[in-house]
This record gives sequence, structure tokens and C-alpha cells, in this order.
Amino acid sequence: MIQCPRGTRDFLPDEMERRRYYENILRKTARTFGFREVATPIFEETELFILRSGPNILNEIYSFKDKGDRDIALRPELTAPVMRMFVNAMSNDPRPLKLFYFGQCFRYERPQSGRYREFFQFGAELIGNANAETDAEAIALAAAMIGALGLREYKVRIGHVGVLRKMLADAKVPQERSAEVLQKLDKKLYDEARELFGSMNVDGSDAEDIIRITETVGGKEVLDLISDDAASYLRELVDMLAAMNVTDVEIDLGVVRGLDYYTGMVFEAEAPSLGAEKQICGGGSYSLSELFGGEKVFSTGFAIGFDRILLAMEKEGQKYECTGVDAYVVPVSDDVRTDAAKIVSMLRSNGISADIDIMRRKMAKAMKQASAVNARYAVIVGKNELNENSVTVRDMKTGDQKMIKLNDLPKIFK
Amino acid sequence: MIQCPRGTRDFLPDEMERRRYYENILRKTARTFGFREVATPIFEETELFILRSGPNILNEIYSFKDKGDRDIALRPELTAPVMRMFVNAMSNDPRPLKLFYFGQCFRYERPQSGRYREFFQFGAELIGNANAETDAEAIALAAAMIGALGLREYKVRIGHVGVLRKMLADAKVPQERSAEVLQKLDKKLYDEARELFGSMNVDGSDAEDIIRITETVGGKEVLDLISDDAASYLRELVDMLAAMNVTDVEIDLGVVRGLDYYTGMVFEAEAPSLGAEKQICGGGSYSLSELFGGEKVFSTGFAIGFDRILLAMEKEGQKYECTGVDAYVVPVSDDVRTDAAKIVSMLRSNGISADIDIMRRKMAKAMKQASAVNARYAVIVGKNELNENSVTVRDMKTGDQKMIKLNDLPKIFK
Repeated sequence: MIQCPRGTRDFLPDEMERRRYYENILRKTARTFGFREVATPIFEETELFILRSGPNILNEIYSFKDKGDRDIALRPELTAPVMRMFVNAMSNDPRPLKLFYFGQCFRYERPQSGRYREFFQFGAELIGNANAETDAEAIALAAAMIGALGLREYKVRIGHVGVLRKMLADAKVPQERSAEVLQKLDKKLYDEARELFGSMNVDGSDAEDIIRITETVGGKEVLDLISDDAASYLRELVDMLAAMNVTDVEIDLGVVRGLDYYTGMVFEAEAPSLGAEKQICGGGSYSLSELFGGEKVFSTGFAIGFDRILLAMEKEGQKYECTGVDAYVVPVSDDVRTDAAKIVSMLRSNGISADIDIMRRKMAKAMKQASAVNARYAVIVGKNELNENSVTVRDMKTGDQKMIKLNDLPKIFK
Repeated sequence: MIQCPRGTRDFLPDEMERRRYYENILRKTARTFGFREVATPIFEETELFILRSGPNILNEIYSFKDKGDRDIALRPELTAPVMRMFVNAMSNDPRPLKLFYFGQCFRYERPQSGRYREFFQFGAELIGNANAETDAEAIALAAAMIGALGLREYKVRIGHVGVLRKMLADAKVPQERSAEVLQKLDKKLYDEARELFGSMNVDGSDAEDIIRITETVGGKEVLDLISDDAASYLRELVDMLAAMNVTDVEIDLGVVRGLDYYTGMVFEAEAPSLGAEKQICGGGSYSLSELFGGEKVFSTGFAIGFDRILLAMEKEGQKYECTGVDAYVVPVSDDVRTDAAKIVSMLRSNGISADIDIMRRKMAKAMKQASAVNARYAVIVGKNELNENSVTVRDMKTGDQKMIKLNDLPKIFK
């Protein structure tokens, strides 16, 4: 029996309804912030992702040759495609551009809880400027989205790549090797970082200072420990966020993010309930368009792991109640099937969701199906009642039944 | 400069808003009919599509090996994946199953107007029975969807594969070659069909009878020309459709569809405005699950070409008006930026879509941006007004301005 490919999922009706419901909450929140939706293809030229992330990305993506011998890849993320689209088609539009997207991404990696080969990302990019208002707008949107979904336990941590980059430079870490060090620090692999520092002849106390900074976590006051532009920038940002009612944030100078293209502020959100794979959102300010042949433009963006945040909500016991149909129409005998079809059609054209027995079932079995589709009312169509232009309506919850004139039928669904 | 791959498209904000609007109309219509949404992965085991369509499908799909040496393919259509899902996970659910889906499909073919390598399909499958009510339900949904979108000029044509299959058998066309003939007839390549008939030693007048039947188009009365089960079945179906207020349909015995798995009724809808690529919808009753390792279950389904139907609506001059934000907040000077951020945040938490200048622009330029984002009101935040707990609100259409107390601000957006 053919199954769906490893690491991918089918979404059955209940799960899909729940996903669409939360997806639309995210969409609505983004629109409330003045962001507008865009979409890009499922696959891109492989080169695009190499430009963004380096050639190692090839080890973890679905890349292949198409019939025209082009190197293409299923998108592993959406920032690069959106910035490519910006360079191709939107670079002359009034700025800032406030864009959001929702869609599948793909990574060839070992599937585990919260990690899929096909996964869904909701993200936003704010293109046009590098300042505290821009960063605040992005973080405020991310926080509003997570809040709108109803997730209770989460933490937003804000850092700045400038702090560590400057310290690394001051400690004489060669620039071309700083990414290597940052990746170790990002993963809190301090012993490996110490080894690296040693191999670069970094002074031991400088190394410990750097490690200490990555462990610096707390309120705005922790910024007093450092005195550079990044610290005053973060102070301004935190104040702006407070004005926007986003106060539940932490400064964490250990938030580094893995990638070279980040230029300043970086942030992450995590849901502690998820354990090891707890990150539900990540982003920061960056500059990427120049890699794709455009002019250099500062942007701030983030992506929310939709699957993971839904998982976190589940772990918190959040339940989604599926809606059923308003009406299930039951023809009592075969000679009223055409009349029943007329009635279901009349209900639908009044905007009432209505289903009908098409299996030619006997009454009792049809009523069972009315329950199965979670109908609010069963509309029972019998010959005698029809002669009086009426049907019998049963409230599926209470079991109450009454006869209703056909003309009055739509009204009971108001 | 990297572009999106040939045959794929980026959807910019205006186009995307339009697409989501119409996509949601389709979704809502399907729900009104008691259908529920499902989703399957973007790629599947290649074998799935070969089982459905035969090995020739390999010539026109994106198929490749993943890093685990599995043969996978980007889905060229969604009926096979949905039926695979049914076999895997839903075969014990109460029937009928009424499922719908919306998503990207992929075909490697020469791009042209209305034909893309990445295209979007909206479809529905009704799993559980083969009878006139089932087929009527599917056709009624397709017609309701097309109608709900507002397309004016379209034709629904209904046929039955049984009619021609029987005639071919009677004319001694070998069963294994009937698909070949049907494909010619489907494309109205009559001379090539005649050649084929000749090569099979089919009697000349039988051949002409068959061709004449494929040209049989009209109301229910054309069914009088044939006298078999298929004709009486189609009569019953047309009557059931009439009861459901779907009267704008034609019998067309030339609707054959290309594929072996159709078992009876087949139908298509076309938009004449589209010229050569005018088909916007196609479907029929079929049996497919047994090919995927499940039990044999009769189903009826159809797919609507979302890109094509949007194109047809465009050709008819249908315009979609994009919505702008409710408010654009303009700080008059740098010292009120924090207050402006508070105001935009207050509006948003009241469910009002609100944008704010984050480019630190002077008033005149910021007002230009308010126009660019199509704001209904500009909310102008100045020091003096703030001292009176007020802002100036400008109606962007009329240019009218007045001072409003901050407490009263949300009310003007009702």
C-alpha cells in the first residue's frame, strides 16, 4: 500500500479545519498590522538557496535537475524567494514593503517530533529600513500572532549580532572564521567554542568574556554590562516595544542565529513545552537583496514554525471544536428524493451549509450519518409532510422535533 | 539576476489578495455543500501517478530521486493523492466522504496562456457510491462554485463513457485498444480515429455511427438517439440536477476524458472566452482506490483549474478591488514617534488594520505613503494635539480633516 512519503503528512478533515482556522488568525493579524500576502513557487533555482546559506545547504534540501537540465530545489525557507521576488518585481515600489507569506517548505532531514520534511512556515518581511521602529514592528507582529493563536507559555528573546561580532573582532578572531565561532556560541557548545578560540590564539580571558556575554540574559538593565552602539540600539528598541504594549521580552545576547546575512537585531521565540525543539519563531534584521542582483536594502523579517506552534498549543491542552453542517436532509422514502434535493438546494442558496443522504439509506441509518457529519438539525422529508409544504426538523442535540413550513425553514438557521 | 523558474509565478500583493478572495469563495461554497477540506503532500511516490495514469505520465511530470534513493514526483493532480489518503486513513469512515482540496500541482510542459508548470487546482471527491444523486451533487457543486465566482459565460457538458465503450465493444474494437480510440475521439481528431478504426478492421458504417455519437450535443432529448442503460442514467441525472436548480447543462456524448479509470458519467465545464485552452473544470465518476491497495469504491470527483477560471473572469472584465488599511498613522515630528506607536498599537488591538510611518519621513512624504497603502484615514499625530489627548484624522478620499479625542478614535472605523 502506498503511503505518503517519509516526513510528510496528510491532513484529514478535522485537522485541516483546525489548521485553516489558525492559519486565518495569523493572516488576519498580519493584515491588521498593514502587511500584505505574497506567494512564490514551491521550487526555485538551487543557486538562490546557495547564495543565501552557502553550499552546505545542498546536504539538507531536495534538489534535482528538471527535464531541461536546470538545477532546481524545493524551497527550504521563504526569505530568499521573497527577496528574489522583491528584486525582480518590487524594487521600485514605495517603501517600506510589508509582506507576509504562508506555505510549505522542505528539508531532507531525519523526521522527529516537530520536525517534518514538508513543514509549514508563516513569515513576514519588512523591507526598506534599519531602525528601531522597523524592528519593533516585526517583533510586535510576531508577538501579536503568537498571542492571537492563544499560546500561553512562550518567551521572546532579543539579541544583536553586532555585540559579539565586535567582541570577536576585538579579540582578533579572523573575520572569515567568525561565523564558525558564532555557530558554536548559537548552539551553546562552549567547550567547542573554547577549542576554536584556542586554535585562533585568542586570549583566554577574552574568550571567557565572549562566552559570558552569550550567557547574558535579562531585562533592559543587562544592557548596562556593554557599552556600544548595539546596546543603545536595543534600549531604544525595547522602549519602542513597550510603547506597543510588547513587554514580555527578554534581552539575550546569546541569540546569534546561524547566518551571515543578519546585520543587527536578532530574535527568537520559544515554547518551553516543546522540549528540545522548542523554537517556534526566529528572525532579525538582515540584508540579502544584493546577493540576488539587487541593490542593498535593509530588511527585518521572521518566520513562525506553524506545525510546531500548533504542537505547542496542543501540549497546552488547547482544543479546537470542528463545526458541522447546519442541516442534514433525510428523504424518508425513495419517492421524495427529488423533493429532498430541491430542499437541500434551497438551503444552500440561502447560505446554509447543508448535506443530504445520497446513499439511499433507510431513515435510521441516515440519521446516524446526520450525527456523523455533526449536523445541527436533521431535516426529515416525508410524503405526508410535503403535502402540507412542510418538513420535520430535529434538533440533533436535544432531539426535539417539530414540523416547519418550507418557507420558514431557512429562518431557523439564523 | 535569478528569476522564478520557467512556467512558475510570483504572486504580488494585489494579485494574491484577489486570489485569496476567490479561493475563499470556492472554499465557502464547498463547505455549504457539506464538503470538508483535506491536504496531501506536495510530492508523492512516483508510482502513485503511474498507477493512475500509466507510465507515459513520466514524460510530463517532475520526478526525481530523493537522497534516500526513493522515486518521488511533484504531484501533477490531486485525485490520486486524495484517494491514496482515503485508502490509508479513511477507508473505515462513515460514507459518503465528501472531501475538497486546493493546492499547487506541477507539470513539465511548454508554458502558454493558461498553462503553467506550477498551477492551482480546486477539486472535490465524493467517495462512496455510484448513483445519480452522487453525480448530481458533484456537478451541482462545480456549477455553484463557478457561479459563486461570478463567471458569466460557461458551459457544462455531461457525457457518459459507457455509451462509447459499449459501441466500441459492439464494433469489435479490441478492449486493450479502446483507450487509444477514445483519446482521439476526446480530442475530436476524427480522421485519425477513422485511420485507427480502419487498422482494426472496424466496419465503416459502425465507425461513422461512433463518430456521429461523439458529435451528439444538446438537451435531454438527444438521449432518445441511444437506447441503453447509460441514456436512462443520464436522464435521471439531468432530472436530479433540475431539482437542484442546475439547468444550464448540455448532454455531450463526445465528452470522453482521457483516462481508463472513469466508470460512467463524465463532465466538463468550459469558458469560451479562453479560446483553445478553454476547459476550466473536468471530472466524472470513477474507481481508483483498488489500484492503491484499497477496496474498490465508487467515487465522483472533479477539479477546477483555478488559474484558468481567474483568467476567464478577467477576460470578462471582472475586477477585484483591493482593500487598503483602515488607518495610516503619521508622526508629525520625531518626538512623537513613541506616542504614534502607542496609537497604532491601540488601533490594532481594537481590530482596526493600521500602518505607521517607520521610515522617519517628513509629513508630506508620509501622507504620500498613506495613499500608497490605500489607507481610509490618515491619523496625524502632533505634539500640540497630543497635549489635548487628540489627533487629527484625515479622510483620504475626501480630504476632510478633524480633531478627534484618542478615546473616540476607534469609533470612527466602525
